[in-house]
Amino acid sequence: MSFSPLIQQLIKALRCLPGVGPKSAQRMALHLLEHDRPAALVLAGALQEAVDRVGECESCRTLSEEPICGICASRSRDATLLCVLESPVDMLAIEQTGGFGGYYFVLKGHLSPIDGVGPEDLGIDRLMERLERGEVKEVILATNPTVEGEATAHYIAEQVRELDIRVSRIAHGVPVGGELEFIDGGTLAHALAGRRSLV
Amino acid sequence: MSFSPLIQQLIKALRCLPGVGPKSAQRMALHLLEHDRPAALVLAGALQEAVDRVGECESCRTLSEEPICGICASRSRDATLLCVLESPVDMLAIEQTGGFGGYYFVLKGHLSPIDGVGPEDLGIDRLMERLERGEVKEVILATNPTVEGEATAHYIAEQVRELDIRVSRIAHGVPVGGELEFIDGGTLAHALAGRRSLV
Repeated sequence: MSFSPLIQQLIKALRCLPGVGPKSAQRMALHLLEHDRPAALVLAGALQEAVDRVGECESCRTLSEEPICGICASRSRDATLLCVLESPVDMLAIEQTGGFGGYYFVLKGHLSPIDGVGPEDLGIDRLMERLERGEVKEVILATNPTVEGEATAHYIAEQVRELDIRVSRIAHGVPVGGELEFIDGGTLAHALAGRRSLV
Repeated sequence: MSFSPLIQQLIKALRCLPGVGPKSAQRMALHLLEHDRPAALVLAGALQEAVDRVGECESCRTLSEEPICGICASRSRDATLLCVLESPVDMLAIEQTGGFGGYYFVLKGHLSPIDGVGPEDLGIDRLMERLERGEVKEVILATNPTVEGEATAHYIAEQVRELDIRVSRIAHGVPVGGELEFIDGGTLAHALAGRRSLV
């Protein structure tokens, strides 16, 4: 015996959520059906509406239901700075620091020839068009410090080289509050190579 | 800055799932919107359909989209045994052991005067009607070994006392494969009090 077909269908559908295995999906399905049916309907509606209406910002490619997202629509930011990111979450993380006042460009991924992800899939052609317009003076490459993220950053740096634009990469090193003892070798090597003189 | 209103609405709606906090909800929402929109639509449909169509079995009160669930509809089980449970998941857990061939009755909760949950909310009146029909010879009380679960079991046992029906409680003790050293005192006390002679 197992659950009735509709409950099994719901359990299976919940598995699409990242981090949700068979046991969690079962617990979620039964919780919603037993204790919180209104919330289940709200969730169904929110999923439907978000899928139907959330597209991407025409300017920075982040997820947005408006043609131009709130940040790109803002006129009070520094148009000479452009931060290039892999994903909308990274954009949120940087915004939350409050330490960056420029604009963003979201690649939505990284170069990955094995998976067939090339420069055009990441909108690098659109990024270059934007840079050629001349307003941006510095491109900050904030892709992830993974092999693919580094390769993507290098590819973009190569492309930008021909233009009169500064290209920088975010610093990699020991996290603030971290203890050297517990930091991996790759990060430590980065931290040493990227040392800055104090006097 | 934060996400656009529709994405925020989706993140908030995902929080209704048990075990999902703000960070997980954010990760889920972005994962679905960035990488798996078809799955999001399937999930929305499954939620809607389950809420619309899954009700409870008229006989055992478990979640079911049919008026009578698969187990209650089966004619090949032992009608003299009735196992009383707190929730449909417990029913599934017992079914998966393959060691029980009787029928079930699901209370969908436990007695809890503080939360205003009384015998009628648990369908105990319907349970008694069923027992009075005389087919059942033994009621196995398999409510959880919590204070409320014990109280519920005792309440039902009191009610059944007047009928000519055996009432039993599932055994509590050391889990198979458990080590005494790591078992809590309450369980150990149960295990000692419920000891069975071997010869």
